[in-house]
Amino acid sequence: MNKIITVSRQFGSGGRTIGKLTAERLGIPCYDHEFIEEVAKSCGFAKEYIEAHGEYSDSGNLLGRIFKSANRFDNLSNQDKIWIEQRKIILKIAEEPCVIVGRCADYILRDRDDVLNVFIHADDKFRAERIVSLYGEKPDKPEKRLRDKDRRRAAYYKDYTETEWGVASNYHLALDSGKLGIDSCVNILVGVYNNK
Amino acid sequence: MNKIITVSRQFGSGGRTIGKLTAERLGIPCYDHEFIEEVAKSCGFAKEYIEAHGEYSDSGNLLGRIFKSANRFDNLSNQDKIWIEQRKIILKIAEEPCVIVGRCADYILRDRDDVLNVFIHADDKFRAERIVSLYGEKPDKPEKRLRDKDRRRAAYYKDYTETEWGVASNYHLALDSGKLGIDSCVNILVGVYNNK
Repeated sequence: MNKIITVSRQFGSGGRTIGKLTAERLGIPCYDHEFIEEVAKSCGFAKEYIEAHGEYSDSGNLLGRIFKSANRFDNLSNQDKIWIEQRKIILKIAEEPCVIVGRCADYILRDRDDVLNVFIHADDKFRAERIVSLYGEKPDKPEKRLRDKDRRRAAYYKDYTETEWGVASNYHLALDSGKLGIDSCVNILVGVYNNK
Repeated sequence: MNKIITVSRQFGSGGRTIGKLTAERLGIPCYDHEFIEEVAKSCGFAKEYIEAHGEYSDSGNLLGRIFKSANRFDNLSNQDKIWIEQRKIILKIAEEPCVIVGRCADYILRDRDDVLNVFIHADDKFRAERIVSLYGEKPDKPEKRLRDKDRRRAAYYKDYTETEWGVASNYHLALDSGKLGIDSCVNILVGVYNNK
């Protein structure tokens, strides 16, 4: 019996939209930006700060490493502090059926067998068009932006899980939203969630 | 419009069975062991030799490297020779709708947009039980056998494609047959093949 769907996704792949639509079809909540409000309430950081550091690592560059070491209190970096708060919230919301987008929820819930872990990806062309038309990203060199966001998500995942982001065997389903289409991905997830 | 399904798979995951059942449901042929007969006819190697070297690399160990360098004629290793014959056969059979299991068919057909690339995987427990009960593998340490076969399949894939085996973004669908079940995987593939 499946209870939770976690959605990891490449930037611009439509993973968040697929999560929302799947949750709507299943009549269960979908958590994504809602985390930020909750984390802000419990640890006091500004929402923009949490959005920037809640699933993106800075450890891949020099400024990031300086940030990480300079912002410590209680022996924890700010990024660690946000991780701990997010983890608590994920464990709490996962008591009831829901869809959770990003934030290493697949790893945090790894010991449960009622969780369906999904990875959504697509080729650069599909994602570049999507971030320009839907997110209002600047149309020059969107591919660089895709690579940068994915690199930082992967580094964040590695920082806290010690496993690799985007490796097929870490997920129960990995779907190419560009090839299959958003609706087809939603249909597959609804079918799988309801079947077991 | 999809015409071809390629199935890459972890050893013992049931990928071959999923390929066969999907092809049956779609009323199209499935090619797997059939390659070996064809390659044997056209390049003269024994069937057992082709089975051992047609999708498993030996380059990961010393004996393998000696084999690779010692068995050259026409500046090609025997493994290269088998690759070339397999590639020709894949290009020919892919003129008509079919399912192709293994042998880097996803890479060989990468420039076509009527090909659905699938990766099937499962956890060690599911695969170990499967290789012991279905393939008659020795029941002691089946996990070591799984790791060895997968490592050699991954190395073969890397040898000829220069990309990584098992990375989600290389496939349109990657499915965990242990979590989802063989029948559910077949249903998903039949649905996706017929839908576009």
